[in-house]
Amino acid sequence: MYHHIKKLMFTVRVGAPDPRFGNMLLEQFGGANGELAAALQYSIQGINCEDMACKDLLMDIGTEELSHLEVIGTLARMHLKPMKKAADAAECDPLIAIAGGGGVALRDSQGNAWTADYLKVPGELSVDLRNNIAAEARAKITYERLINYCDDRGTREALQFLMTREITHMRAFMQALDGLGQDPLAIGLIPPTPEIVDQYFNDSTGTGDQGEEDLTGPWNSGDGITVVDSPALREYQITHATPKSARTTERGRTQPN
Amino acid sequence: MYHHIKKLMFTVRVGAPDPRFGNMLLEQFGGANGELAAALQYSIQGINCEDMACKDLLMDIGTEELSHLEVIGTLARMHLKPMKKAADAAECDPLIAIAGGGGVALRDSQGNAWTADYLKVPGELSVDLRNNIAAEARAKITYERLINYCDDRGTREALQFLMTREITHMRAFMQALDGLGQDPLAIGLIPPTPEIVDQYFNDSTGTGDQGEEDLTGPWNSGDGITVVDSPALREYQITHATPKSARTTERGRTQPN
Amino acid sequence: MYHHIKKLMFTVRVGAPDPRFGNMLLEQFGGANGELAAALQYSIQGINCEDMACKDLLMDIGTEELSHLEVIGTLARMHLKPMKKAADAAECDPLIAIAGGGGVALRDSQGNAWTADYLKVPGELSVDLRNNIAAEARAKITYERLINYCDDRGTREALQFLMTREITHMRAFMQALDGLGQDPLAIGLIPPTPEIVDQYFNDSTGTGDQGEEDLTGPWNSGDGITVVDSPALREYQITHATPKSARTTERGRTQPN
Amino acid sequence: MYHHIKKLMFTVRVGAPDPRFGNMLLEQFGGANGELAAALQYSIQGINCEDMACKDLLMDIGTEELSHLEVIGTLARMHLKPMKKAADAAECDPLIAIAGGGGVALRDSQGNAWTADYLKVPGELSVDLRNNIAAEARAKITYERLINYCDDRGTREALQFLMTREITHMRAFMQALDGLGQDPLAIGLIPPTPEIVDQYFNDSTGTGDQGEEDLTGPWNSGDGITVVDSPALREYQITHATPKSARTTERGRTQPN
Amino acid sequence: MYHHIKKLMFTVRVGAPDPRFGNMLLEQFGGANGELAAALQYSIQGINCEDMACKDLLMDIGTEELSHLEVIGTLARMHLKPMKKAADAAECDPLIAIAGGGGVALRDSQGNAWTADYLKVPGELSVDLRNNIAAEARAKITYERLINYCDDRGTREALQFLMTREITHMRAFMQALDGLGQDPLAIGLIPPTPEIVDQYFNDSTGTGDQGEEDLTGPWNSGDGITVVDSPALREYQITHATPKSARTTERGRTQPN
Amino acid sequence: MYHHIKKLMFTVRVGAPDPRFGNMLLEQFGGANGELAAALQYSIQGINCEDMACKDLLMDIGTEELSHLEVIGTLARMHLKPMKKAADAAECDPLIAIAGGGGVALRDSQGNAWTADYLKVPGELSVDLRNNIAAEARAKITYERLINYCDDRGTREALQFLMTREITHMRAFMQALDGLGQDPLAIGLIPPTPEIVDQYFNDSTGTGDQGEEDLTGPWNSGDGITVVDSPALREYQITHATPKSARTTERGRTQPN
Repeated sequence: MYHHIKKLMFTVRVGAPDPRFGNMLLEQFGGANGELAAALQYSIQGINCEDMACKDLLMDIGTEELSHLEVIGTLARMHLKPMKKAADAAECDPLIAIAGGGGVALRDSQGNAWTADYLKVPGELSVDLRNNIAAEARAKITYERLINYCDDRGTREALQFLMTREITHMRAFMQALDGLGQDPLAIGLIPPTPEIVDQYFNDSTGTGDQGEEDLTGPWNSGDGITVVDSPALREYQITHATPKSARTTERGRTQPN
Repeated sequence: MYHHIKKLMFTVRVGAPDPRFGNMLLEQFGGANGELAAALQYSIQGINCEDMACKDLLMDIGTEELSHLEVIGTLARMHLKPMKKAADAAECDPLIAIAGGGGVALRDSQGNAWTADYLKVPGELSVDLRNNIAAEARAKITYERLINYCDDRGTREALQFLMTREITHMRAFMQALDGLGQDPLAIGLIPPTPEIVDQYFNDSTGTGDQGEEDLTGPWNSGDGITVVDSPALREYQITHATPKSARTTERGRTQPN
Repeated sequence: MYHHIKKLMFTVRVGAPDPRFGNMLLEQFGGANGELAAALQYSIQGINCEDMACKDLLMDIGTEELSHLEVIGTLARMHLKPMKKAADAAECDPLIAIAGGGGVALRDSQGNAWTADYLKVPGELSVDLRNNIAAEARAKITYERLINYCDDRGTREALQFLMTREITHMRAFMQALDGLGQDPLAIGLIPPTPEIVDQYFNDSTGTGDQGEEDLTGPWNSGDGITVVDSPALREYQITHATPKSARTTERGRTQPN
Repeated sequence: MYHHIKKLMFTVRVGAPDPRFGNMLLEQFGGANGELAAALQYSIQGINCEDMACKDLLMDIGTEELSHLEVIGTLARMHLKPMKKAADAAECDPLIAIAGGGGVALRDSQGNAWTADYLKVPGELSVDLRNNIAAEARAKITYERLINYCDDRGTREALQFLMTREITHMRAFMQALDGLGQDPLAIGLIPPTPEIVDQYFNDSTGTGDQGEEDLTGPWNSGDGITVVDSPALREYQITHATPKSARTTERGRTQPN
Repeated sequence: MYHHIKKLMFTVRVGAPDPRFGNMLLEQFGGANGELAAALQYSIQGINCEDMACKDLLMDIGTEELSHLEVIGTLARMHLKPMKKAADAAECDPLIAIAGGGGVALRDSQGNAWTADYLKVPGELSVDLRNNIAAEARAKITYERLINYCDDRGTREALQFLMTREITHMRAFMQALDGLGQDPLAIGLIPPTPEIVDQYFNDSTGTGDQGEEDLTGPWNSGDGITVVDSPALREYQITHATPKSARTTERGRTQPN
Repeated sequence: MYHHIKKLMFTVRVGAPDPRFGNMLLEQFGGANGELAAALQYSIQGINCEDMACKDLLMDIGTEELSHLEVIGTLARMHLKPMKKAADAAECDPLIAIAGGGGVALRDSQGNAWTADYLKVPGELSVDLRNNIAAEARAKITYERLINYCDDRGTREALQFLMTREITHMRAFMQALDGLGQDPLAIGLIPPTPEIVDQYFNDSTGTGDQGEEDLTGPWNSGDGITVVDSPALREYQITHATPKSARTTERGRTQPN
């Protein structure tokens, strides 16, 4: 059950409303990496989760993101309100003025309606957590960009708060993933095929017009890695990849936790 | 700010899980007229609303719908869980098993991802409320159909509760609309053009193969209504529809309240 | 069967074409609450409808909206045509110039493609009509906003005509709903659970930063209403909501009429 | 302006309703290549078209497709109606029963909502017509597949009629394209770069597992064609592709006709 | 198998980066008729194709389009890069700066995410080829418009190259269609109903406000064509359209080749 | 530039084709976490990337995923081919038979068209890599589920190969992220606000119906973490979150690398 308290989690103060910036803020309200996406991804993972401690974590953070959604929506609304004047409205975004009368809607900064296609809810706890770490990293960088494009002190304070919390959440999800105590390369139950897993395919070769080159890094020069050069050109073809014992014995083990 | 209490608003008890019915239940979880759509439509209208009493109403009901989302999601999850067995999974819906491992996702009963295109947030209070009345009516009939297709007692009890609350909300929105004290035909500020507003165009005529006919009802036979027969065929064309005084004097009055 | 007459329902005259306003007009051509949405929502409800008089009504208005779609499309095309010059095109909207060569397309003012997700076709006559009332109210307020942002006399006349007809249609749908003679709170056949339907849940409390408060209105202070304060915080939980007799006896009664 | 006559363009008779086939029929009602897509693609091209004869053609066929939409919708509705019984409903498609009460909606046979992304309205007459030829070919083959999967005589008669008309329309669009008297390879005004236009790049080579080979056809063995073998592997790179005179002198000539 | 060579198929040189034009270029990167759509439409048709020579053709051109995608993406990236400065970013498109940091994404010039709804993969070779001819014509005219709006020499050279190749491909698909040796009106196996196929329905009549008229062209005045005037108004209704022998004898012949 | 070799990267052998399983396989062809999503996410990040070594890595793996797309598409096509018979087609999925003639299309296992909304291309290298790690984990678990639902030996071998490669890629992206030598909590340049970053908000409390509890884990019990209990209920509100020095000095540093 949910309860709503009218006070915002962060006091929103706006000096001079800036409808153009209000439109940018919608990116974190109804955009792909915004607060609604975070709130729903974690809360739905929480409904599916069978690890009681992680379920609690997911519901804690999912609920906090709902409070953030309210903060960013209130902030965007304050910036968009002056769009009642036709000229401003047209400059920013006709849909906001014509279709929504200057109110916020679940759209991103280019007017795309929010869609659940943005969410990653794969139903395997260790994979869910990796998705959440990536989601928090995306949200952090988006807030940083918004701060860089904003001159209003009160708005920047609110954005700094919201940005800070993404790091708090990213760390919590990293701690939860570590806390599972799993081999970081073991996803699910079926092991990868031994030799093939250690082959690095060098599928992009030559020198590009802007100086792109065929380079090395830990991924193709580390211990135990075999580099297969230009497999397509060598018509390198693999067969019989399933070792006899690779199949999991219980069907369906890899379901949500 | 939001707070979450782990107890559900309605105790969910499921006798025999039925994955096929679990799939149907998703219609009210991530479907066009489901609980997420209701929660977000009202809460976002609430953020935009400047009538303090109606804002409170919108936040009250928006928050209750979040609690309903949790109930229907938990119920669907209970029915879908046995989909761990391959055969059942394939029968119901491969995506639920393959992509989500038997967990719930924000999809409708045919697997379409939820989209904010479902929402109606026009930013004019009296119009918002009409949308909410219509939304509650849709949700009510959807729950009724689910009840009619369900044999499990615990599931039906939960659905009956959720269905009941839609009527509670529909009445509240109707009372709020009445409470505005507006002429039910006056939307916004610019009045319709007097004579033209009273003309009923009979654009569909003749007799159909299944007995369809050109019939009368209060809409084309009431006092003050002029019927224009087959305007296209008579090349009935209108000009000069704007009376001089029709324009609102303040630009942008018709913004959110 | 349909027949098309080349004369428009309203004579469109444009003084100085304004591509930026042409782009705004697309909101009523290919937008969520525009003429295509209206034409298709009513016509498809008409195909499904089994009440012969209402079927006639739905086809009459559905067909009129097709004529409106033609008027608004022609009007938008006139305003967009000068976009042949590169500078203007870029200013308004690259897609219109680059992808469509200055012609109209089924997109809204932000370039989103029209989708049937906008439609509400629930298949129960009294619910269909409520959706249509809400749809007409949305269309009316959208036309009013367009009029407020428009200085061209001929364009404003056309918009005034189209806006007027939305009120005509809204009234017709209201009369049809009244004409069904149903209790306005009775949707479908299964009655709500008696006591629960009269409880108002106060789920949003406290005082907000902008003066939001916990207020009363007819919805939480009328006769027969019981207010349940902060149900989540009280862990107020409901069980056994289905009275034994609540289930409809005939399955499937709540289908389209 | 449009007028609607209640009689259908083709008398629809259904022997034994088959909900599963009704669901398949939705492909031509609200699917990517169905009657709505055809009606709207041609009618919107018609609004944009400046060649008066072709505009008439586009409006004639666009209007006929609206009548087809009504026929296929009525036919699908007849087959879906028995879905009032729960068992049948679940078997076919829950959304149709749960969300729409057994009525038709603008969705395809897999439940995807219709979207204007299906339309091709490029705004250059000769390109519009090529799109329409392709669209009619797609519609024809889809009707043929439906006929092959249908045993009901009345349904097959209706589908045969609709399928026949697609060939009528395809021929009309082919005649209109020929009637423009243009070089079939000249699209727009800017000519292609002479030598480069005659080079055929052989980008896929070798022998595949299922016997795929590097073969010849008129496209890589005709007069005047130069085959460039494996350009990527030879790092074949092109520069200076614009002959000085290639730019059109008038900007924006390539707008809709 | 695919191999990537870092050198671009066309050397991209940009004088003064123009973020606004970079945004327009996205139309051919992630737009409805852009290079990704072409690459995937042909390659997927290639996977399905059973005519070995046409399969080779489809893979050749599908692969070349991947190289074009890389060229247009690199070109757009060069134009968008200066968007690091806030002012420029806001002017062009907030999403590109806020959500993507000035990088390219699979979106069109209005920010719509690319969708496979753009593709036409009907699974019948002669229909596939007609779709490809239409797709190349759309891509050609789009490149021509981009060239007309561009002043940078290096950019125009790259666009001229890409535009030229669309004509090369259009001709190749036309040659392949001719090479099938089929009657151009015969799609699939079931023949159209003889008399009905030769009737032209004149469904749009009268004189329009802008001089639109009921005109003739080869489509309604050629040999063997019967014009049916205003069929709706005459309640012209057809029955029994399936000649006894029309059904194909083998089910499912009309599958992909 | 790309080159295609007709030999597949893995020899595909199918014993008894199973159309129902072919439909499931589409999840990895045109689904949210399938091979197209992987190929495009990495290749587009590669176009944007300014770190030359990571650009090479992204192009290597992006290209390999194109080869995987071809393998999974060929495998799905083999399983779907028998759908030429009507009965089988109807059982699996009408769209595949009716709209595509038994060929593969860019749709997931529930028929949803692929969309670029699935992609995560945030334009900051360390965030891109986190997204890729998560993407590979999702792909791995999806292949594992497909293997668990499959009995055909040749199909399972191919899936085992593709699954193995996801682990290879996940490790490579993890090594690349480590190789950046960044503090794992430092995303971008602006630091989080010191005290606030260490507060854990306990927003979900109480005991649930299924035994859910308020539990501890490393995220709310570690060193340096302050737990804030039920912040909403305590009306815990934060202000002045931006330390003076928090703003990055160069605007736009957080662009793609």
